Amino acid sequence: MAGPAASMSTLDTRFTEAFPNSRKVCVEGERVRVPMREIALSEGAPLQVYDTSGPHGTDVRAGLPPLRRDWIAARGDVAEVLPAGSAHGSEQIPASLHRPVVRGAGPATQMHYARKGEVTPEMEFVALREGFDAEFVRAEVARGRAIIPANVNHPELEPMAIGRNFLVKINANIGNSAVSSSIEEEVEKLRWATLWGADTIMDLSTGADIHETREWIIRNAPVPVGTVPIYQALEKVDGRPEELTWEIYRDTLIEQAEQGVDYFTVHAGVLLRYVPLTAGRLTGIVSRGGSIHAKWCLAHHQENFAYTHFREICEIMQAYDVSFSLGDGLRPGSIADANDEAQFAELRTQGELTRIAWEHDVQVMNEGPGHVPMHLIRENMEKQLEWCDEAPFYTLGPLTTDIAPGYDHLTSAIGAAMIGWYGTAMLCYVTPKEHLGLPNRDDVKAGVVAYKIAAHAADLAKGHPRAQAWDDALSKARFEFRWEDQFNLALDPVTARAYHDETLPADGAKVAHFCSMCGPKFCSMEITQQIRDFAAERGVGEEQAVEVGLDEKSAEFRERREIYVPAK
Amino acid sequence: MAGPAASMSTLDTRFTEAFPNSRKVCVEGERVRVPMREIALSEGAPLQVYDTSGPHGTDVRAGLPPLRRDWIAARGDVAEVLPAGSAHGSEQIPASLHRPVVRGAGPATQMHYARKGEVTPEMEFVALREGFDAEFVRAEVARGRAIIPANVNHPELEPMAIGRNFLVKINANIGNSAVSSSIEEEVEKLRWATLWGADTIMDLSTGADIHETREWIIRNAPVPVGTVPIYQALEKVDGRPEELTWEIYRDTLIEQAEQGVDYFTVHAGVLLRYVPLTAGRLTGIVSRGGSIHAKWCLAHHQENFAYTHFREICEIMQAYDVSFSLGDGLRPGSIADANDEAQFAELRTQGELTRIAWEHDVQVMNEGPGHVPMHLIRENMEKQLEWCDEAPFYTLGPLTTDIAPGYDHLTSAIGAAMIGWYGTAMLCYVTPKEHLGLPNRDDVKAGVVAYKIAAHAADLAKGHPRAQAWDDALSKARFEFRWEDQFNLALDPVTARAYHDETLPADGAKVAHFCSMCGPKFCSMEITQQIRDFAAERGVGEEQAVEVGLDEKSAEFRERREIYVPAK
Repeated sequence: MAGPAASMSTLDTRFTEAFPNSRKVCVEGERVRVPMREIALSEGAPLQVYDTSGPHGTDVRAGLPPLRRDWIAARGDVAEVLPAGSAHGSEQIPASLHRPVVRGAGPATQMHYARKGEVTPEMEFVALREGFDAEFVRAEVARGRAIIPANVNHPELEPMAIGRNFLVKINANIGNSAVSSSIEEEVEKLRWATLWGADTIMDLSTGADIHETREWIIRNAPVPVGTVPIYQALEKVDGRPEELTWEIYRDTLIEQAEQGVDYFTVHAGVLLRYVPLTAGRLTGIVSRGGSIHAKWCLAHHQENFAYTHFREICEIMQAYDVSFSLGDGLRPGSIADANDEAQFAELRTQGELTRIAWEHDVQVMNEGPGHVPMHLIRENMEKQLEWCDEAPFYTLGPLTTDIAPGYDHLTSAIGAAMIGWYGTAMLCYVTPKEHLGLPNRDDVKAGVVAYKIAAHAADLAKGHPRAQAWDDALSKARFEFRWEDQFNLALDPVTARAYHDETLPADGAKVAHFCSMCGPKFCSMEITQQIRDFAAERGVGEEQAVEVGLDEKSAEFRERREIYVPAK
Repeated sequence: MAGPAASMSTLDTRFTEAFPNSRKVCVEGERVRVPMREIALSEGAPLQVYDTSGPHGTDVRAGLPPLRRDWIAARGDVAEVLPAGSAHGSEQIPASLHRPVVRGAGPATQMHYARKGEVTPEMEFVALREGFDAEFVRAEVARGRAIIPANVNHPELEPMAIGRNFLVKINANIGNSAVSSSIEEEVEKLRWATLWGADTIMDLSTGADIHETREWIIRNAPVPVGTVPIYQALEKVDGRPEELTWEIYRDTLIEQAEQGVDYFTVHAGVLLRYVPLTAGRLTGIVSRGGSIHAKWCLAHHQENFAYTHFREICEIMQAYDVSFSLGDGLRPGSIADANDEAQFAELRTQGELTRIAWEHDVQVMNEGPGHVPMHLIRENMEKQLEWCDEAPFYTLGPLTTDIAPGYDHLTSAIGAAMIGWYGTAMLCYVTPKEHLGLPNRDDVKAGVVAYKIAAHAADLAKGHPRAQAWDDALSKARFEFRWEDQFNLALDPVTARAYHDETLPADGAKVAHFCSMCGPKFCSMEITQQIRDFAAERGVGEEQAVEVGLDEKSAEFRERREIYVPAK
């Protein structure tokens, strides 16, 4: 891939363990330096791939360096509203993580600048990262077809774009719950998820220490952080949805915006009149946020406060550049409920809300299902594109069958790959523990890897200009028996190598011109190489091969069989 | 599902360990008894699901009972040609596994009887197993749109159909190689693969003891067994493709047909003039069989003997009812090579050969790729349906990206699910060890489970009348917090339970009306249940809910919050 590259100074041992023969390099732009992972090969040019692992060697108690601080300051559109350490909840957070809080007087969003025709450093960063012109990035953001989630209070972020003309992104959910987990574990999950390729993370904490957990996560997150603010609002009323108020919700949005959350899931599309549409479902409402709003609506017989106060929410989002992730609170929770009236009623309202957010220069994506059989997936994408004016779609899977709890990273990777191909911009991962328990470290990795596969398969199918180079490099290494290169180019090199070594552990096997599947006498790739050499040496083209009379050469070829049968 | 059911006598402990709360039952037909797995639930009717695990409690040294022996004899179309113990290679096999060899004088195939309008017991068995009319099964077989692979020398087989109007089937490859494995391991893999749901198995042995391994496998296989006879033929010429002859190949076909192999992969479509088409590929020829034939063609500059002798092969297949699996020796081995000229040239020839086989009343399916990005998958299916006259398609994956060795069960399950939906009748599994090493027990299970998911997702998308009942039963159990039922209904109950118990091991958690994802105060399914109860109690219909003025009821509902907030 293009661009000059310079080696970075510090390397994280976890990175070098996960990706042997890879190093972090930076592609230099006019105003930005974009990190990439460069995979060295035993022959030919190294391959540079997209990298989400963030700066290495940093202290989790100090947070990441504020990459964007000067860019934000240079725009002159935000002012410090709270000095470091004075924001809500600061007393729970070590002083080393205190930051001043800034806020815009008017719109401080990437969309605002894009619409004004201005290419921000964030757009330039995205452009270099994906191999597009910065002007193209600007135009996509201006049109609302892509977002760059980037809160002005999250300067640690390495900017990325979510939009269907960009690489398909994946999100990993982390967050403690009332039952389990700790802050340290959550920060560790963040680093682990981004090491393997999570493009954004959502902190879905619901238990104690929500604020503190989030602060640790944001200060150490090189990727956008999303939340579902209604979870924290509910904690504030001791878990009783009926006691929620607009004021409590609003204050929670501001509290989180001040911390630097980059996107909020807002379930403003769960309208009172849609709630009864779920009563006949097999699995009712499965979204936590959706069920909280639904219960509130029914209890008060009033319209959802997130809907009635939506313009006020936009004003908050605008001032910090928090992007909307318009929640799908009525998404189907089973194959039986896919594509029903409740789901699509909410999607139409998501479209209405998208246009209102755009009036405020606020960036928006729309959340989507859930559980959908394959033949009903495309309809979701088509309706979302139409009703939501091509705002980025962000789906959970979808799971293509309900019968495999314990394997829902796989049931959903099928649906995720397909909807990604159809145009979904970001895929929310599902781990093997979905429906069963909380993901541990291995589950997070399994979920991220499954979704990197789904996203990359979608990138190939969509024809992203950079996607196939990776496949070609790996297949070429495989064909040429460059085993070490094949391992190093794998999405998970250590696992690939370990699987090889289980059958053929000897070092000699890694330079052998055969593998354990067929053994030394029986290798089809080895035979192919001979066919190719044969054709090349004799200058036999495709059409000619039959006609030029290979007869006279066949005897010769047979003589060369010692190439085929290695020392036995 | 329909049909009376009687409990079977012997249960295998492996079965009861893998599927707690399941038992084998038999659905009784006129002439046949079809085994099903019945999952008992804590409430409501049990669920019967398709079962491939075969008779339980049998001794591997005695083989399975000869279920079809009387059916085959009753047709009167075969005669004993070799008494037990006198067939080729018998001396290597324990006497307890010796069987007489039978052979037809003319066509003894299911297609032959189907075309004559006769419903065989095999067709009746298939019909009951899938919930169709026997006449429909017959018509599909007569038309060539489905096959029932069932060698007259494999009476142990429980008949099954491969065709796109039936449930999507999966194949598991087993077989030792020069590098690794043993006979005991291979028989164990067979039993393990069919326990988890493999509908057929292919014995791809290439090392020593090919004949003996195969005999053990067939005598213990309740599912059709496929092979690639060219592998054994090559062993007979000490691994030198140039030294292969038609006679050696023919004798190998007969040897294997006598043992009871149900389908042969025959690479008769690898024509001399197609071989040079692969020279410009990134990964040339990756099919072992394809490369052997290609090398032979080039070495002799003669047309592929499997092509030139194809009608003689048909006569052999016809006499034993061995089905063709027309190999795709030129399938793509990488994303870069998908859907190229070499691949499609061979597919056209597969169509030509399909029609010749049908002239002989021989059953046929066609093998397909391989490595194909998502957007090129449909073209494979469309061309196959058109060029091969709707003969069943049998694909290997396809893998939708090359970048994830170690996870190719997953990269390929995506493609497999899609092509299954489009109409592929059987999916050849890929294990996590693909490209790296030989699958062990865990890999076989991982491959089978991934492919059961892909096949079931395809069945749902195609609308197989029985498919969705399983999803609905599981989702209903999930919604109603019937944890034990949810585990027992899972494709892999033990894994589902283990994942749950990792977070919430207490027995109480399995009757709790919440789960570890949200904790006791925060369960969306619990909230939904209240919404539903509320709507039901008050007789509020979908349309009414908004209009009847819930205002007066909202206070009441708020009073009931003790239902929502359990003892804390």
